[in-house]
Amino acid sequence: MISVNQARDILSSNPLSLPEEFIPFQKSLNHTLASNVYADRDAPPFHRVTMDGIAIQSEVLQVKKQFKIEGIQAAGQKQMTLKNSENCLEVMTGAVLPKNTDCVVPYEMVQINKDTAKVNEFEFKKFKNVHLQGTDAKKGDLILRKDSWIHPGILGVLASLGQEKVKVVRPPKVLICATGDELVGVDQQPLPHQIRTSNVYMLEAALKNLGIAAETAHLPDHKEELRRDIEKALKSHSILLFSGAVSKGKFDFLPEVLNDLGLDILIHGVKQKPGKPFLFGRKNENFVFGFPGNPSSTLVCFHTYFKPWLSKQLKRSASQASGILAEEVIFKKPVTYHLLVRTEIQDGKIMAYPIKNSGSGDWVHLSEADAFLSLPADVETFQKNDIFPLNYFHKGVF
Amino acid sequence: MISVNQARDILSSNPLSLPEEFIPFQKSLNHTLASNVYADRDAPPFHRVTMDGIAIQSEVLQVKKQFKIEGIQAAGQKQMTLKNSENCLEVMTGAVLPKNTDCVVPYEMVQINKDTAKVNEFEFKKFKNVHLQGTDAKKGDLILRKDSWIHPGILGVLASLGQEKVKVVRPPKVLICATGDELVGVDQQPLPHQIRTSNVYMLEAALKNLGIAAETAHLPDHKEELRRDIEKALKSHSILLFSGAVSKGKFDFLPEVLNDLGLDILIHGVKQKPGKPFLFGRKNENFVFGFPGNPSSTLVCFHTYFKPWLSKQLKRSASQASGILAEEVIFKKPVTYHLLVRTEIQDGKIMAYPIKNSGSGDWVHLSEADAFLSLPADVETFQKNDIFPLNYFHKGVF
Repeated sequence: MISVNQARDILSSNPLSLPEEFIPFQKSLNHTLASNVYADRDAPPFHRVTMDGIAIQSEVLQVKKQFKIEGIQAAGQKQMTLKNSENCLEVMTGAVLPKNTDCVVPYEMVQINKDTAKVNEFEFKKFKNVHLQGTDAKKGDLILRKDSWIHPGILGVLASLGQEKVKVVRPPKVLICATGDELVGVDQQPLPHQIRTSNVYMLEAALKNLGIAAETAHLPDHKEELRRDIEKALKSHSILLFSGAVSKGKFDFLPEVLNDLGLDILIHGVKQKPGKPFLFGRKNENFVFGFPGNPSSTLVCFHTYFKPWLSKQLKRSASQASGILAEEVIFKKPVTYHLLVRTEIQDGKIMAYPIKNSGSGDWVHLSEADAFLSLPADVETFQKNDIFPLNYFHKGVF
Repeated sequence: MISVNQARDILSSNPLSLPEEFIPFQKSLNHTLASNVYADRDAPPFHRVTMDGIAIQSEVLQVKKQFKIEGIQAAGQKQMTLKNSENCLEVMTGAVLPKNTDCVVPYEMVQINKDTAKVNEFEFKKFKNVHLQGTDAKKGDLILRKDSWIHPGILGVLASLGQEKVKVVRPPKVLICATGDELVGVDQQPLPHQIRTSNVYMLEAALKNLGIAAETAHLPDHKEELRRDIEKALKSHSILLFSGAVSKGKFDFLPEVLNDLGLDILIHGVKQKPGKPFLFGRKNENFVFGFPGNPSSTLVCFHTYFKPWLSKQLKRSASQASGILAEEVIFKKPVTYHLLVRTEIQDGKIMAYPIKNSGSGDWVHLSEADAFLSLPADVETFQKNDIFPLNYFHKGVF
């Protein structure tokens, strides 16, 4: 069996090429930008007023404090001109700085009496309260790099730049397959020896949080039907995720069927707990991830292998997070131990508190974990305050 | 003007009551659970086999290592009975432990020859590789508390418990309003004195990341039209978010119009930079948040005030995160300084690197920030490695 790092290396060397497409910018959130984006004009595009007040010629302030108001320059209006340099124009935030003026005295420092503005006190400075044209970018400057991840701030930039259609990487089509004849529908009352399907919905939700809309299916524990269904699914979906059917059981037909269908099984078995029977197979542009069927095993393998792999295909440079173990843990098997934890940020530190549970089949306590630490295989006693790689199950949307 | 903490206190004492509704569990991700959920049966519901192998009576191992195979107990099959206690039954992960057996020897420790299984070595232990009925929960136990946030792990639990319809808190209806006659559509070529609308799309995206589908509108900088549009919007939406029109400008009609419409303006102006003119008003179950129109001001106010307030209404117990300042910063005004930063997790610590920018109108550099630190008003020099409250703009979905 291979180590966790060996498994991750194998995944890294098996890239998926994703096509690009144009989509409306309002739908581009959480996509990967597929082209560089340049400034279509200076930012700001004009000398921009940053405070409501009066625009004057700064030099004049040295000789006088009282100014006749010639008019109002509103935001969204064509640039006005101060006719007499001893006068002023009222100006609004976001407006173009009027011609023949070079600074703005905010209303807080001005007394207005009919058509006259009196400046109370003002430290002279040219271009005070003016955001100068081109300060942040010049027309033609590279603003957003290809492969940027489109978060709300970047979506705002795309809007500012008039990128009505945005070239993005198209997310892959994913089918999540449940296996196991013990599973019945969520709407059904299980017989004593049955349980309800849950892992596929958990994975569907985890993918949804990554911005990927996946489909789900339930495949039977019968070799011929399984082969037929998988063959069909490989045509419509580039990625299949399986929960279950990868272990050594008599009805764990998945490895055999994938082999029959011409996939190379590149990983089957990793020195880790939970998730030992994890499987990864490939044929050309089809990728199959087989997660062991216990809820913790499924979710840990999803986050340890699938998420970083997908992240790489989508050009997201997600660096490995780390967390601080808040209690001593002893684990004596020579395998990587994915320890379920609840995290808390204390004084800028990510503290990880182990969640007590009865093993990988314990979905009751799995739901209390928001992350897991991956404790290395060659250590038995993990000290309080030691630092380990951390993977979040979810980060909290708030 | 009030402080940031005073503003947050005012918000805290103005709750919004949200109705509850039943929705299909598959749509319940990122909602707030509105009722306790109890176990409808034990978890696991039966003595559950956790390894593929053979089930035997553990005592018999002390006298013999070779067992005749009576049959196979598959997952999803009715419980079988071992007829002769000197024999065994093959069992699959997820199956019911057969009657008259009390432990499972995994295939890794067994040699199978036709209908006989020979155990190579096995440390005797009753209930080895069996997940005992009711270990994780008993029928009737409280499994999920009212007000839990439904993340993928909890969605899986809801499925396991057969909660096909889930009672959740219904998210509020939010309308995001742009103001400013300088704004033109993203698909338009602005005149020299105009800019494109972007803040509303940024806010729409930020809300989408919180699981809230908001609508957007562009309201005019004309008092009568603004009054008419807001009056109408207050009937269809419980929350209005404004970008712009809250400052001291001649065309910043929002405070006056809200007042005319009978709203109490509970906050208008906070000792902070950016975001000084922040406004909050209320009338019964209508809430208006006015964010200053510069992109940084809008986004900082959204995350400082609206997000924690909404979080509280949705019963999310989001504790205040903190981050470690990675470089010395000097800021001499006696107001809270919301410093844009890029964060990195290093050895379990959240390090925050200041982003250089030209002020709150600089959307080019805003897009490089993933968070901001709120530096207190009464300090001028902020030391490297000091710890401050941190708010994430986005956490990265990967």
